[in-house]
Amino acid sequence: MNYILKNENAIYYECGYSNDNSIFLSIDGVNYLFTDGRYKVEANPKNTKVVIGSDIIKLAINIIKEYKIKELSFDPKEWCVYSFDRLTFKTDVKLKAIVDLSHKKRIIKTPKEIKKLKRAVVLGADAFDKFANYLLLNGDNQDEYRLNLKAKEILSYDGRYELSFEPIVAIGENSAKPHAMPTDRRLNKKDLILVDAGLKYQRYCSDRTRVAQFRDGMDFTLYQDFGKAKMQKIYDTVAKAHDMAIARAKSGMKAKEIDKIARDVIEKAGFGKYFVHSTGHGVGLDIHEMPYISSKSETIIEDGMVFTIEPGIYLPNKFGVRVEDMVVIKNGRADIL
Amino acid sequence: MNYILKNENAIYYECGYSNDNSIFLSIDGVNYLFTDGRYKVEANPKNTKVVIGSDIIKLAINIIKEYKIKELSFDPKEWCVYSFDRLTFKTDVKLKAIVDLSHKKRIIKTPKEIKKLKRAVVLGADAFDKFANYLLLNGDNQDEYRLNLKAKEILSYDGRYELSFEPIVAIGENSAKPHAMPTDRRLNKKDLILVDAGLKYQRYCSDRTRVAQFRDGMDFTLYQDFGKAKMQKIYDTVAKAHDMAIARAKSGMKAKEIDKIARDVIEKAGFGKYFVHSTGHGVGLDIHEMPYISSKSETIIEDGMVFTIEPGIYLPNKFGVRVEDMVVIKNGRADIL
Repeated sequence: MNYILKNENAIYYECGYSNDNSIFLSIDGVNYLFTDGRYKVEANPKNTKVVIGSDIIKLAINIIKEYKIKELSFDPKEWCVYSFDRLTFKTDVKLKAIVDLSHKKRIIKTPKEIKKLKRAVVLGADAFDKFANYLLLNGDNQDEYRLNLKAKEILSYDGRYELSFEPIVAIGENSAKPHAMPTDRRLNKKDLILVDAGLKYQRYCSDRTRVAQFRDGMDFTLYQDFGKAKMQKIYDTVAKAHDMAIARAKSGMKAKEIDKIARDVIEKAGFGKYFVHSTGHGVGLDIHEMPYISSKSETIIEDGMVFTIEPGIYLPNKFGVRVEDMVVIKNGRADIL
Repeated sequence: MNYILKNENAIYYECGYSNDNSIFLSIDGVNYLFTDGRYKVEANPKNTKVVIGSDIIKLAINIIKEYKIKELSFDPKEWCVYSFDRLTFKTDVKLKAIVDLSHKKRIIKTPKEIKKLKRAVVLGADAFDKFANYLLLNGDNQDEYRLNLKAKEILSYDGRYELSFEPIVAIGENSAKPHAMPTDRRLNKKDLILVDAGLKYQRYCSDRTRVAQFRDGMDFTLYQDFGKAKMQKIYDTVAKAHDMAIARAKSGMKAKEIDKIARDVIEKAGFGKYFVHSTGHGVGLDIHEMPYISSKSETIIEDGMVFTIEPGIYLPNKFGVRVEDMVVIKNGRADIL
């Protein structure tokens, strides 16, 4: 297949190198990377010819014209109309749209990729432990702005690792928003605190969510004691949905069947309408990729897929609970990474 | 003009509200905002009807069909091919491409916008002073990772303000890269340190660059003493290019004439080939917008435009110097914000 890519992670997957202004072309089995002069020294992709110039679309067109190919595949989500129109304006080749072209190639992870993902997860989990320690020592009366900054400092190991996404640190009623932004809400004893965060190891992402009650001896392990009946019931329901989905996920299932396992637990407990998102998403070079573990996903689960399991219950203006781990499918079953 | 927008800042400019999943439509003088259920409570745009649903492109198509319009303008840089194809698939209306549609509308800032930009600049400048103090007290032997994190903490006022972009804190030879990434290079006495950073006040960006020598009594004011002849000559050349461009910029000029004023100073001093970028860029809701102060820009400068002046000289593997301020054109002249 001849194809052309523009997305940074899609290009990195092909040749082990990318930057914020490059195009990758695979044509008749030959690979090209087009980029600008700023990257002349560092651009060193595997099995790929580098072509440098100020107008990378023009560079790509010139090479495409040299080959007598009929069809070139592209992902219509990767290209803006402006760049795409420039690309097609002067070429006769038929551009064939394949939605999620690169994500589809990346859905099964290699053992090498799984190692990197595992390392990202371990570093992320250690950072959660460190953040719990920080909260124990210094968390009292600090606001979400400050706690969010501190989480970023710890998660990034003082700036050494990039984060997978802007972390969420939400206290009490703010945890009821699945994508809470920091506010000046301060952390007080017995408050619920939700942390959703991850980091990148060699460009591969981790993703984890934990909820705990802020008090002496707190930690971010899976099993939590809240000392409040309603909160405990909701937490235990979410944790059970998480555990069941992981225990029962099998290769050969459709992704929507895994979503249903988690959703059934929450619905049975009477909180179905408060589980307002899907059960999980694939993780790799992108924080959200295939397979999507949603009620509509027909994707067949296979060995080597890596995705999150993250059921949640959100009681508006009260509190929210989400528990999230990453799993890899191995020998037909889901292993927590 | 009937038009449809997808970019978050473009939409914010129209109605004072936006989020990461919305479309704005202005049709026969009526404004619509399409967004999903997560934003039902907070979505409160000015003079704009809110329409909620899970498929916002479908919502837009439904409204477009209700009106008997012939033409609808859009910015081909804002739309990916995938969304655009969905938008055009079922409508007869002619979609007219206007590159930089929203940026063109936003090129002249209102007094209210200038006030917000000024506030962002003042907060940013104060943060530079605080960061200089931090360096004096704690900078010795810290690496760029750590200093970058600290810059973010100070610039964001402990997380209260969003940053305009990932700050650059580059020491010594790393400052020779115009877009340096942090490394484990440590700060030692007499090292040159370059800081390029800004923050957002009510969504309006600031942008500033300063260079100094790390030593007792250092600060980030414009006039710096390096105690090294070559470094001093380069710094003074860049500062002169910056000062001259600001002093001589006038409304009625083309943007490229302002670029030439700065470039001439640097070329005359014999460093022309080390000034590898353009002299400046507009700043507003986006950190890079019109007017672009480059050698090719034919844009006529007018009162109310806001842009950076940021000449630089970069000696590969040695050091780089850039000095940057934001200016507003007022009564025909450039005022530093």
